[in-house]
Amino acid sequence: MTTKAYAAQSATTPLGPSTITRPPVGDLDVAIDILYCGVCHSDLHAARAEWQGMRYPLVPGHEIIGRVSAVGKSVSRHRVGDVVGVGCMVGSCRQCVACQDGLEQYCEGPHGFLQTYNGWLDGTGENTYGGYSAAITVDEHFVLRISHSAEQLAAAAPLLCAGITTWSPLRHWGAGPGKKVGIAGIGGLGHMGIKLAHAMGAHVVAFTTSPAKIQDAKHLGADEVVVSRNPDEMAAHASSFDFILNTVAAPHDLDAFIPLLKRDGTMTMVGVPDSPHPSPGVANLIFKRRGLAGSLIGGIPETQEMLDFCAQHGITSDVEMIAMKDIESAFERMKKSDVKYRFVIDMSTI
Amino acid sequence: MTTKAYAAQSATTPLGPSTITRPPVGDLDVAIDILYCGVCHSDLHAARAEWQGMRYPLVPGHEIIGRVSAVGKSVSRHRVGDVVGVGCMVGSCRQCVACQDGLEQYCEGPHGFLQTYNGWLDGTGENTYGGYSAAITVDEHFVLRISHSAEQLAAAAPLLCAGITTWSPLRHWGAGPGKKVGIAGIGGLGHMGIKLAHAMGAHVVAFTTSPAKIQDAKHLGADEVVVSRNPDEMAAHASSFDFILNTVAAPHDLDAFIPLLKRDGTMTMVGVPDSPHPSPGVANLIFKRRGLAGSLIGGIPETQEMLDFCAQHGITSDVEMIAMKDIESAFERMKKSDVKYRFVIDMSTI
Repeated sequence: MTTKAYAAQSATTPLGPSTITRPPVGDLDVAIDILYCGVCHSDLHAARAEWQGMRYPLVPGHEIIGRVSAVGKSVSRHRVGDVVGVGCMVGSCRQCVACQDGLEQYCEGPHGFLQTYNGWLDGTGENTYGGYSAAITVDEHFVLRISHSAEQLAAAAPLLCAGITTWSPLRHWGAGPGKKVGIAGIGGLGHMGIKLAHAMGAHVVAFTTSPAKIQDAKHLGADEVVVSRNPDEMAAHASSFDFILNTVAAPHDLDAFIPLLKRDGTMTMVGVPDSPHPSPGVANLIFKRRGLAGSLIGGIPETQEMLDFCAQHGITSDVEMIAMKDIESAFERMKKSDVKYRFVIDMSTI
Repeated sequence: MTTKAYAAQSATTPLGPSTITRPPVGDLDVAIDILYCGVCHSDLHAARAEWQGMRYPLVPGHEIIGRVSAVGKSVSRHRVGDVVGVGCMVGSCRQCVACQDGLEQYCEGPHGFLQTYNGWLDGTGENTYGGYSAAITVDEHFVLRISHSAEQLAAAAPLLCAGITTWSPLRHWGAGPGKKVGIAGIGGLGHMGIKLAHAMGAHVVAFTTSPAKIQDAKHLGADEVVVSRNPDEMAAHASSFDFILNTVAAPHDLDAFIPLLKRDGTMTMVGVPDSPHPSPGVANLIFKRRGLAGSLIGGIPETQEMLDFCAQHGITSDVEMIAMKDIESAFERMKKSDVKYRFVIDMSTI
């Protein structure tokens, strides 16, 4: 069961052609020929070992769209020929309270959830390899149905990470009609946050440091755009937000945003900065019972819900398609935020 | 309408005997002869102008128990002779959403709620004077019914601030049977948090930096006590708390506590430190969708609910009674946390 892949052989070598071995198709497994794979900033962090615990060869990619090529004999949820998706998770304990609640991303099993790449394979000690490859084999529970049209499939790939990472907190904190929702940062995650919050019916205010992004944010669905470096613009929104989704991973002043929340409002972080944000003042939390929270991707049931919602509403990411060989230059451009808003690899080019 | 009081004439002079003028008893006002007044750390901060915006003479005191001496002609909630309480608020706009929700402490009117002392008196620009005095006149809406027995009244005084400041978040975040609740800090606020969370039926774990407080905390109602400076003791409680009420106002490492919260758990701060806490890592929030929040005293309806609950369950503060003339030495001892757990002034000594 060998397949073509693009792998980093070490933290200091560029990604290049490689051959990997996939496990055999078990009774509950789905074998998938990969059509498209989105490029997440995590892929770069992992390939370069900017996070701890990376093992090589490392094959990134957790925004996967493909077609089912084979199924195990006990598979009931997918059939050969189906278009399916795989996100950041390919396994979990399936027995803890979190898994039972359909929130596998918070799996309380001994190893947490199994990451699509650089994951610990139970019993074997082997690594998992991600979507920068021609094929992947995944337990059917972690394979999502994709009902987007054929021409939407490439742009649907980033829904598997950027989409669910913003959908899950927007749903959990009740974004919808009558709610004023802020989206801080207009990148891979933020542009999905704007689209989804808008489609959910919320009044959406996008925050950006860059006036150049105002028109783009409005096209994405923002009702208003605030340049967060302008204190007067920020002050005009004091104590008015039900919820702010903060997608900015760079260290920044959280106290610029927290006072914009109304009583009982929450700002939720989805990015981990390299160094800590300046400490937020607790007085801003105390005087209106505000909250600061975090959220991690999303569970399998809510990922399916999000994908169905997006297909129904015609929502995809804004993407730029690349060939596999161009991944390193895409990484370089991504580091400079020079992409609107997500690269997707055409896996026929591998 | 003059009355005896103990006032600071400036930020650098000790409190001493003074005479103040109370406003006349309006149609909706209740005149109260003060029996007891608790000593809150805020009183010291205010008297010494450790906070901004203080005006002198300054008469502290917002944990007031007294007896009604007169009522305005439209007063319906209280009668002459009733034992009543007054807390941190003596007014609010009564019209905003927060006031309509019974959360006057979050009043969105132009001046917020009217503080019992150092408050801005609408229309007159005059100051308000607190409970370190023989009598006070307050709008009936901000006067609470006290149904504790006569011998409990002195110890009931701190319920008006320390009690409600802990009750409100414990209720809001669902402390009760089946919930594991942490109380960080065992002082004026924390000792009430332990008593109330225990009476609500929660499993209560007290956190203290001082092993000497372990037995005391158990007597107050803690099921377990953890010395927060012992990493092994802390680690044993990882990801297990539904809620942590953090009463510690001194700057400290919030990341010692946040990982102890289970998924969707919240730690709520009720103290404002002089300098910021070290910045908490957002990864601890993200990986279990945890929250950090704040809470400010409590509204009038929930204060009444708390007082009734405490009377029914025989709950008061643990107090040390002092004479009015001893307030400065009480302040000095309070600064060293040398009190179990609240000073209360016997106002017959003024």
